[in-house]
Amino acid sequence: MTTLSSTPRTRLGRHPERGSDDRAALHEILDDGMICHLGIVVDGTPRVLPTAYGRLDDTLYIHGSTGATSLRDGPSQDVCVTVTHLDGLIIARSLFHHSINYRSAVIFGTPRLVDDPDEKLAGLRAVVENLTPGQWDTARQPTRKEMAATSVLALSLDEASVKIRQGGPSDDDEDYALDVWAGTLPVRQTIGTPSPDPVLRPGIAVPKHIARRVTS
Amino acid sequence: MTTLSSTPRTRLGRHPERGSDDRAALHEILDDGMICHLGIVVDGTPRVLPTAYGRLDDTLYIHGSTGATSLRDGPSQDVCVTVTHLDGLIIARSLFHHSINYRSAVIFGTPRLVDDPDEKLAGLRAVVENLTPGQWDTARQPTRKEMAATSVLALSLDEASVKIRQGGPSDDDEDYALDVWAGTLPVRQTIGTPSPDPVLRPGIAVPKHIARRVTS
Repeated sequence: MTTLSSTPRTRLGRHPERGSDDRAALHEILDDGMICHLGIVVDGTPRVLPTAYGRLDDTLYIHGSTGATSLRDGPSQDVCVTVTHLDGLIIARSLFHHSINYRSAVIFGTPRLVDDPDEKLAGLRAVVENLTPGQWDTARQPTRKEMAATSVLALSLDEASVKIRQGGPSDDDEDYALDVWAGTLPVRQTIGTPSPDPVLRPGIAVPKHIARRVTS
Repeated sequence: MTTLSSTPRTRLGRHPERGSDDRAALHEILDDGMICHLGIVVDGTPRVLPTAYGRLDDTLYIHGSTGATSLRDGPSQDVCVTVTHLDGLIIARSLFHHSINYRSAVIFGTPRLVDDPDEKLAGLRAVVENLTPGQWDTARQPTRKEMAATSVLALSLDEASVKIRQGGPSDDDEDYALDVWAGTLPVRQTIGTPSPDPVLRPGIAVPKHIARRVTS
């Protein structure tokens, strides 16, 4: 499947021209991100919580403590997971046409609590590797007790939508004559110089895969 | 009021030591952010959408088209607004203790559709100024027609919680002997060099308040 399905929930009400039904675009937005916002309904009201995630093919994995409300109640109900990249501030000539450049993915579905030990490990690996590629094989592996204390949820990417706004400002025709600056302020999420744990044993250099993560 | 109230929704289930009941911390997290994630319930299932916002004292303002589902249905029901800053990736010696540094604010409440023209203008100004301070007085002001096409929602900050994780990794005692690098990768959102609209009239320089927004 290379295109995204359209359902009442994923159909875009506003600015449908910003939508994309390209599954590759969905994967790219997810793989570029580090945290998602998980929406659940508790006692009839919404709750939105930031959390880490990872992707394997067309499944999103989310992990957490077995004690967390969001994960305990998660499998029995629909959730919404949103990943957003803020890419720019659009400065227009009129206040009305101010906007932001962004890429967002919104996923709907009922998550599945992962029981299979192999899939659970693979899901956790996906979460760690999404944040820091190469890290899974470097650190001390989880013990049986640690695995038991961790819940992993799997959410299918079957019902998802992608929305992207890019490019510069778009003003009303008559406003182009104004003496007002217009343009784009690019926004980026950057990773800086690694800061070693103050009690790190002497002689342990920053691993290559950590150094590669630095973007600024 | 300088402390945040505690309600069943704002009481932290996991890691209560990361909570803060400091209203100043709430304001700072909101003022440092550019987009929030708005959670609503539509037909019993959650929907999480990114959007811009602004703060005036203890009220959060969100704007959007009068045609948007999120705003049309918003005033009649509870929403949840979450603002998250990802501040760092925590690389621990064990995979189990990997974590992220973050600051998040979660606000619950039933938003009010702003009818009063003065408050509506003030709310929109707060949204624009939160993204780009100084911009409101520079660009062409909204017309009556543009104002009519825009909805503004006001959400009280009365019911809110703050959660912050900072500092480096915290490993199990026996793992400190491992030959594994541990530390923090700092994450930051940066604003780059302004890119003028290709059809900008010649001779219009980048205004000072725009140049000041650049962080990298």
